[in-house]
Amino acid sequence: MNEKVAALALSVPRRLGMARRGFVTVATAALAGVAAGPLLPGRARAAGNIDARLKELGVTLPEVPPPVANYVPYVVQGDFAYIAGQLAFKDGELMHPGRVPTDVSLEEAQAAARQCVINMIAAVQAACGGDLDRVQRCVQLQGFVASADDFHDQPQVMNGASDFMVEILGDAGRHTRMAVGTNVLPLNASVEVGGVFAIG
Amino acid sequence: MNEKVAALALSVPRRLGMARRGFVTVATAALAGVAAGPLLPGRARAAGNIDARLKELGVTLPEVPPPVANYVPYVVQGDFAYIAGQLAFKDGELMHPGRVPTDVSLEEAQAAARQCVINMIAAVQAACGGDLDRVQRCVQLQGFVASADDFHDQPQVMNGASDFMVEILGDAGRHTRMAVGTNVLPLNASVEVGGVFAIG
Amino acid sequence: MNEKVAALALSVPRRLGMARRGFVTVATAALAGVAAGPLLPGRARAAGNIDARLKELGVTLPEVPPPVANYVPYVVQGDFAYIAGQLAFKDGELMHPGRVPTDVSLEEAQAAARQCVINMIAAVQAACGGDLDRVQRCVQLQGFVASADDFHDQPQVMNGASDFMVEILGDAGRHTRMAVGTNVLPLNASVEVGGVFAIG
Repeated sequence: MNEKVAALALSVPRRLGMARRGFVTVATAALAGVAAGPLLPGRARAAGNIDARLKELGVTLPEVPPPVANYVPYVVQGDFAYIAGQLAFKDGELMHPGRVPTDVSLEEAQAAARQCVINMIAAVQAACGGDLDRVQRCVQLQGFVASADDFHDQPQVMNGASDFMVEILGDAGRHTRMAVGTNVLPLNASVEVGGVFAIG
Repeated sequence: MNEKVAALALSVPRRLGMARRGFVTVATAALAGVAAGPLLPGRARAAGNIDARLKELGVTLPEVPPPVANYVPYVVQGDFAYIAGQLAFKDGELMHPGRVPTDVSLEEAQAAARQCVINMIAAVQAACGGDLDRVQRCVQLQGFVASADDFHDQPQVMNGASDFMVEILGDAGRHTRMAVGTNVLPLNASVEVGGVFAIG
Repeated sequence: MNEKVAALALSVPRRLGMARRGFVTVATAALAGVAAGPLLPGRARAAGNIDARLKELGVTLPEVPPPVANYVPYVVQGDFAYIAGQLAFKDGELMHPGRVPTDVSLEEAQAAARQCVINMIAAVQAACGGDLDRVQRCVQLQGFVASADDFHDQPQVMNGASDFMVEILGDAGRHTRMAVGTNVLPLNASVEVGGVFAIG
């Protein structure tokens, strides 16, 4: 499977004109049978040492941001952990509210998507009873981007989430994804990201 | 886990200015180790007696509303029951069509979200072969709210769904959630809600 | 369960004024205890011979279309295969971009939804290691339709996906579904469809 994905990735025509660096790097690492994190080719990394990876990246996980309504941050059922939709709260403030690109630039929206993942990882940590090494896979991300009617680069916004997920979790962070535009999100957020994880 | 969620909930700053009574009550009940339904603190309730709870609430489940296209109301796979997206049909009529708050008030949209859950519970009952006591957990709700471009209170609309789910199922009704705005929904519905449940 | 669905389907009032031929046919086949594919009533079909069915329909699966960003086409976890959101790429071109019905007719959007399913089946095939006979069920489709603010027939667009899924997979193709409108999708696509499958 890794080989197949890799082969596909390497044969991708560049017709879409999008930065796909991350994906190809992942594929190359997989082809070479490298067990290290795909965005750290050639670098040894202890399997599952995610807390160290977070520290290395200078990321401090927040307390799990409370949901803004009557629901819970995560539910564990069997091997699956479902994570509630995350907004880009940081230190109690919602980062980069508004519509892309009218109110929020592509780069700002990518930063918001990255913050959603930080908050999501905090919820995953809680779902794992504190031990992020129990994460087996990020199975799916669902990303919604508040978009002007003529904005079509939702995938590039969501790369802010996807790239960071792989940066933190390595191969286990490679996920399926839906990237969807919408006219408006809760609290005027620019990005909302939900996720499903497999945990051991 | 309950303790952690509870602690978080109790430390929530009120910065969001939203009614979060339900969640805090859940958390308080969890803290106190109360096994009763979280919205009925201090009240004994027989585990799994959901039909009685529905009767108590004066809720009559409809026949499973037929999907508006070529698909099925639910699929059971392993321990999971997936429920198709529900609209707020009641007695054959779609409640409160239109956009919030232009055509539909917040309170009306909350009522529509509640009706979506009633229809969903009917589908869950069918998925359980008629026995709602087999429900172990509402794992996830995905809610879409037809929204004016400047409406940001989708979470408050979805509280109409979430609060009612907990009211019916007690602790088993506590779910993860995505609340998303959109410009338009099928049949001009104001709210659409899909769900994933764990059943035994 | 089949009987129940069938009974419901057969009692559906025609109030919605929508073509529901496919669903009723499914229900009728189920009622009659016919094991053949639901859209081929009365016709014998070897269980699981999906490649032959595709050939019969004149469908050639593409190479798995590469995702437009840093994520993977599918993730298999336990019995579930999650498939990334699919756009209507065909031979490297995105079919029928734009909003329905302003830029794209209902019929064109249905064709786009059908193409999304073709691409999805290719990803499912890859997830199954090439053997589509391992598919046990299409559990869920999530469909987003780029819609003018007054377009309410997203279910009819998604019938292009749902009908074709049942045409390919027979009873195993009967799924739960969410059909949602939105103002804009990646690359200006008219339709995006994600899916969850059970595989053996």
